[in-house]
Amino acid sequence: MGGDSKNFWVGFDLGGTKMMATVFDASFKILASKRCKTKAQNGAGQVLDRMESAIHEVLAETAINEKQLAGIGIGCPGPLDLDQGIILAAPNLGWKNVALKDAMEKAFKCRTVIANDVDAGLFGEYRFGAAQKARCALGVFPGTGIGGGCVYEGKLLRGKVSSCMEIGHIQVQADGRLCGCGQRGCLETVASRLAISADAAMAAFRGEAPNLLQEAGTDLSSIKSGALARAIKAGDKPVEKIVRNAAWAMGVAIAGAVNLLAPDVVVLGGGLVEAMTDLYVGLVRDAIDERAMKTFSKALRVVPAQLGDDATVMGAAALAEQAAAKGK
Amino acid sequence: MGGDSKNFWVGFDLGGTKMMATVFDASFKILASKRCKTKAQNGAGQVLDRMESAIHEVLAETAINEKQLAGIGIGCPGPLDLDQGIILAAPNLGWKNVALKDAMEKAFKCRTVIANDVDAGLFGEYRFGAAQKARCALGVFPGTGIGGGCVYEGKLLRGKVSSCMEIGHIQVQADGRLCGCGQRGCLETVASRLAISADAAMAAFRGEAPNLLQEAGTDLSSIKSGALARAIKAGDKPVEKIVRNAAWAMGVAIAGAVNLLAPDVVVLGGGLVEAMTDLYVGLVRDAIDERAMKTFSKALRVVPAQLGDDATVMGAAALAEQAAAKGK
Repeated sequence: MGGDSKNFWVGFDLGGTKMMATVFDASFKILASKRCKTKAQNGAGQVLDRMESAIHEVLAETAINEKQLAGIGIGCPGPLDLDQGIILAAPNLGWKNVALKDAMEKAFKCRTVIANDVDAGLFGEYRFGAAQKARCALGVFPGTGIGGGCVYEGKLLRGKVSSCMEIGHIQVQADGRLCGCGQRGCLETVASRLAISADAAMAAFRGEAPNLLQEAGTDLSSIKSGALARAIKAGDKPVEKIVRNAAWAMGVAIAGAVNLLAPDVVVLGGGLVEAMTDLYVGLVRDAIDERAMKTFSKALRVVPAQLGDDATVMGAAALAEQAAAKGK
Repeated sequence: MGGDSKNFWVGFDLGGTKMMATVFDASFKILASKRCKTKAQNGAGQVLDRMESAIHEVLAETAINEKQLAGIGIGCPGPLDLDQGIILAAPNLGWKNVALKDAMEKAFKCRTVIANDVDAGLFGEYRFGAAQKARCALGVFPGTGIGGGCVYEGKLLRGKVSSCMEIGHIQVQADGRLCGCGQRGCLETVASRLAISADAAMAAFRGEAPNLLQEAGTDLSSIKSGALARAIKAGDKPVEKIVRNAAWAMGVAIAGAVNLLAPDVVVLGGGLVEAMTDLYVGLVRDAIDERAMKTFSKALRVVPAQLGDDATVMGAAALAEQAAAKGK
């Protein structure tokens, strides 16, 4: 494996507040990781520099030469131009039309692929985590929004230019709350962590969730998944009810996607699921069982993600490998 | 093309009341077709005999020897075991566990594939009709129920055993009408031709749709797509409103599927769409434009099916060819 043989992969997770670079050997064992802040406010040029530095550092740490890199995969916010490797827009980063693939290929002289971060995370779970060997894996990741992805017969389903599986913007209430996309009643307005936090903040404000109020106040920025989970544990019944309603709505929406795609596994991930895995996964499972067609639900596993924060870098690196295999 | 070279395909459409066999040359030109009644009440054995006879007749008509058959494709009601070629259950036919593939392969000594009839029809539109060259084509066919299918990068999306894309059983009303599947509020209960007929029958019964009442009475068996279209044309405003509501609900549901799959074309087909193409397709288009994510709807064509009754036989034959190419 010495010399110039290209046997190593870099997976990269580019987030709005932090980034992570991980180097893998040919069997996708993690050799080293480097996390740092994104500092998006400094502009695209400096963020690209920081990305390159992070990769250089993680390579140096493992004593791997750049020439040994087989490829780089980057999970990033979107929408993206997947084939051109351009971030078309990333509100979190304040970016428009950043040619990420070109920048990295120039810097490291190896093939770079970009993917939607949710897709990369699901692909990680498919290759190395909760959805291994699935014929069709549907991933749903509730957070500030709701991310979705689908691996079908080994490949991520995608749109013509960017990703697809926007389950968060399926309408679930005819006259619901206003959504960030401009529509009303999208699943995100009912079942995202942000929607849950907003409902919980109201309960806290009204004095119905004293534990939550004490820990996190009524500011949505403070009411995160851990705070919600601790409030439920401490006995804030209205918070539990809010989470149950949201998880049920999520399950009903997933049931619709199950009726379309007939997956053999649904992977649920993200901070909310991690903070209250049994409650959340159980409720989604129950809602799917109640709403999806029996022929599909009986053949379906509903499972929590296994790889946590490593999912995106692992999946991104595996996508780089898949692209290389296809390119051969 | 003479002698024993296998250059011809048979496409078969097995319906609950009628069947159709069509023979194609290697470029999928229709050489001859034979239609006859299914006579499902006579039992599976006799129906299989009638299927074989229909194929023999259509071959005889074209002077093609069985030995020149490259394969047979059959579109049929389901659920099916696609790989084993078994009709697991077909309420319309009164069938359970009929090994259709084996029966035909024994009779004609050539590879036979079976497909869900909606999938076969959509694949026909993909290969030869309204959805040619689509990267991702979503087909929706409202009738007694609502059939759905999706061709993604040249292949029908499918479930592990049978077909998928059961868009008719996505929940669109939390406490809606009872559906044939046992659930409440499925899209079928709102937007199928049968649901429209039931609403129109009520309007006719109440004297609000005099033209429909005169032509078709209040019996759902008589209120078919043509009668609905003629009643609208004759001025039965409540019937038009019922159809508009149903088409809109259909469009909203399709918008959800569009958000998941990002198709480049949605094909609408079946008797209802044929009977009022402009009205129906326009309303579905408007609803998708209003409800789907802009990035997906702006890249989307919504079109009526082009092949009519030939779609299923053409698609089934093309699926036989695809299976043969894969098998090689």
